[in-house]
Amino acid sequence: MPSTNTGPASRGLKGRDLLSLADLGSADVASILDAAERLKRAQDAELPHALLPARTLGMLFEKASLRTRTTFVVGMAHLGGQAVDLMAEHTQMGVRESVPDIARNLERWVDAVMARVYDQNVLEELAENSRVPIINGLSDRFHPCQVLADLLTLRERFGSLAGRTLAYVGDGFNVCHSLMLGSALTGMHVRIGTPPGYEPDPDIVDQARRIAGGSGGTVELFSSAEAAVHEADAVYTDSWVSMGLEEERAERVAAFAPFQVNAALMAGAAPDAVFMHCLPAHRGEEVTDEVMDGPQSVVFDQAENRLHVQKALLVLLIRGEAALQTLPS
Amino acid sequence: MPSTNTGPASRGLKGRDLLSLADLGSADVASILDAAERLKRAQDAELPHALLPARTLGMLFEKASLRTRTTFVVGMAHLGGQAVDLMAEHTQMGVRESVPDIARNLERWVDAVMARVYDQNVLEELAENSRVPIINGLSDRFHPCQVLADLLTLRERFGSLAGRTLAYVGDGFNVCHSLMLGSALTGMHVRIGTPPGYEPDPDIVDQARRIAGGSGGTVELFSSAEAAVHEADAVYTDSWVSMGLEEERAERVAAFAPFQVNAALMAGAAPDAVFMHCLPAHRGEEVTDEVMDGPQSVVFDQAENRLHVQKALLVLLIRGEAALQTLPS
Amino acid sequence: MPSTNTGPASRGLKGRDLLSLADLGSADVASILDAAERLKRAQDAELPHALLPARTLGMLFEKASLRTRTTFVVGMAHLGGQAVDLMAEHTQMGVRESVPDIARNLERWVDAVMARVYDQNVLEELAENSRVPIINGLSDRFHPCQVLADLLTLRERFGSLAGRTLAYVGDGFNVCHSLMLGSALTGMHVRIGTPPGYEPDPDIVDQARRIAGGSGGTVELFSSAEAAVHEADAVYTDSWVSMGLEEERAERVAAFAPFQVNAALMAGAAPDAVFMHCLPAHRGEEVTDEVMDGPQSVVFDQAENRLHVQKALLVLLIRGEAALQTLPS
Repeated sequence: MPSTNTGPASRGLKGRDLLSLADLGSADVASILDAAERLKRAQDAELPHALLPARTLGMLFEKASLRTRTTFVVGMAHLGGQAVDLMAEHTQMGVRESVPDIARNLERWVDAVMARVYDQNVLEELAENSRVPIINGLSDRFHPCQVLADLLTLRERFGSLAGRTLAYVGDGFNVCHSLMLGSALTGMHVRIGTPPGYEPDPDIVDQARRIAGGSGGTVELFSSAEAAVHEADAVYTDSWVSMGLEEERAERVAAFAPFQVNAALMAGAAPDAVFMHCLPAHRGEEVTDEVMDGPQSVVFDQAENRLHVQKALLVLLIRGEAALQTLPS
Repeated sequence: MPSTNTGPASRGLKGRDLLSLADLGSADVASILDAAERLKRAQDAELPHALLPARTLGMLFEKASLRTRTTFVVGMAHLGGQAVDLMAEHTQMGVRESVPDIARNLERWVDAVMARVYDQNVLEELAENSRVPIINGLSDRFHPCQVLADLLTLRERFGSLAGRTLAYVGDGFNVCHSLMLGSALTGMHVRIGTPPGYEPDPDIVDQARRIAGGSGGTVELFSSAEAAVHEADAVYTDSWVSMGLEEERAERVAAFAPFQVNAALMAGAAPDAVFMHCLPAHRGEEVTDEVMDGPQSVVFDQAENRLHVQKALLVLLIRGEAALQTLPS
Repeated sequence: MPSTNTGPASRGLKGRDLLSLADLGSADVASILDAAERLKRAQDAELPHALLPARTLGMLFEKASLRTRTTFVVGMAHLGGQAVDLMAEHTQMGVRESVPDIARNLERWVDAVMARVYDQNVLEELAENSRVPIINGLSDRFHPCQVLADLLTLRERFGSLAGRTLAYVGDGFNVCHSLMLGSALTGMHVRIGTPPGYEPDPDIVDQARRIAGGSGGTVELFSSAEAAVHEADAVYTDSWVSMGLEEERAERVAAFAPFQVNAALMAGAAPDAVFMHCLPAHRGEEVTDEVMDGPQSVVFDQAENRLHVQKALLVLLIRGEAALQTLPS
């Protein structure tokens, strides 16, 4: 089920894929965040919200996961459904069976598929061959579910997103890409600080700038961490050595050392700035304990919000907006 | 719980095992297919059918699985229960703990056990030491759940089974064995085409012929694919190199090359013949893309029907026919 | 959530951890066993008892498990919730992410965490950093869930526990430690027989003796199996070579040979004594077939009772005593 970006006017999310945030319009993002807040309030109030009774989510993990896996399983449980780990080591996607054939099987059994893959093309291939929604649970290009959780965290903290400034310092990789797109869709100013050679993909920078053009946001690139975080409302970083890149460790640690988020760097951001991280954190590398454990850190709120935004996403992709009607607003 | 073939008169399925289709009578097979059709209609109509509330299925996989594992988990979810993967690498059946002791534990906790094993004897040993039903999810001898799905697929396509002709070409192994028994139980004519040295087990051929003698079916063996598929209503094949036999690959590919299902071979079957495969398919080996993706292919219907027949099986083995009363017929 | 032993007067179990039975008072143990009996009766009568609807349990297994894993998953299913295996090989506790950070994530998503770990300190670290209950599913020090099941099994058999004599022969390791504490909390006399060098930890012996001082129980150590089992009501043993100690096999088999539980040893116990084992059993090593399969053996009752005591524990830790009100007493 290939998706196209519908821009600000939404045709509803039911039946669509989420391979990249660029698959969504601004109104879609707002719908997801609104639904997430309603589901979070329902959960906090212990109100039953079994909006996906007997529905199932298939999950494929080519890479390790704590947050993504747990939050999707727990989310389906809260919604009255179940998640099934398709066991990548059993499925052997592309080896034991072709990716299209696997997609044509899965669409017969489950109501949606979430996949964490090395290669974004595998997600595209699953989506092209499946009638049920495919959700990107992290690829070499994007991490849309993480950034939806981040946007919810920022909206909870600041009340609204448009006009706020988010600085990302570190590797211009999958999380950085999705942050640029998510910021652009919500009218935020995003400032990316990377060492030379680790800039985000220029095509995705262009895509984010086109989207920002319609939302009042901006996308700027910097070659110093200090310049990127200047007066920012949020300072975000990620691991210097993503899964699968372990052989580049020494080289990367040297290149990224000036981009460590420590108290000195945070001092350059706005006084009420928050510190963000998609976790797992490598304490002493990309972030110091004083920042990670300090009062500005919202990293575990981000982790919690994975659960709430993904519950919203599952309901909206599988059953659509109408399924939310039974929830208290 | 050892089972015996009751012949056409059924004593009901509650509490029985399914180690081989020969454990069933013709009436049992009809009950399962009828229940599967009712459950499929209920699912398609989004009618709740939580017929196994709070019931649990234990699953043991000594070999890889996509279809069996996913359909049993999703099936239990649809029925209001849960499946638990017993993690063969934890359980270490026969190493960390004896098979009988494992069976005597499992019967205390779960309502049924499904096992995919290298050795049919392990299934027998589980069944002998367990009060709860044991279901064969593929062994070196049989694949009964697959063939129940195949029979449902054929009945959907042709309206009835008795008198139809099914040709199987390829390796006379576990799927072939269960197809002979399933065809015999439903009064079909089954025609097996294998290279020399890959014929089905003669004891199972004899068993199938004895059953066919009571149902009006026949079981014939051929040494050429063309002879086997002549005017058949269905042409079925399976992998040339089953799991665990990878070291025989070169030798097998050479032996099975004349048994490839391609357009030329399909032209010898009946004009409205269907192409069947239990998947995963090795495109370019046992089947060509043109057949696998062509209009005669029902391979993904077979995969979908795994879900429906296994839901029927679970309800009938765990709770019996009476549990279906609440379903619309 | 660090816990302290509250002694006989209980402050209720809601929100507490179970890292060791010494975290519990005598009244807590009685509450758990009473609740387990009520839940077992409800299950046997097929009365729905979904006392944890939409609640989730996270499970971390650093070591293999059949009984613990299956009974926690099935228990949560019976209670209307779900268990999620956090996949230790994904989570890589202490490697991919620090133990405190993992705890701070998990408390955001699940209602309790059960962990099987090599090192009791990891459990302590999880508990110190988590607001949700942490349950010890076996460590190098303790196995409290097993011993709760054992106490239920003995209470079912003998009507009451106070004054009964339990002999444990074999390795003075985790199961032995928890048996001493559990016996002490319930006023039993526990007699431990080990070879020299395999005695239980003296600190835990002291702790158990202090608890026994308040309950009327006693804790005695012996260097011969015969002395330990003399007129005992129950004879308990465990594997001679626990998980992770395989390199000590030859040495251990030699040291423990005189501690094998066989018919001759059982003859020294009380005439109506039961044989107990936490399983998996190594037949021909710590126990002979004649005892394991004989009329005195209650080993599979113990295994079944894992399910019932853990269901009780989950309800009491997550929701508290009040949640049981809807159950028939």
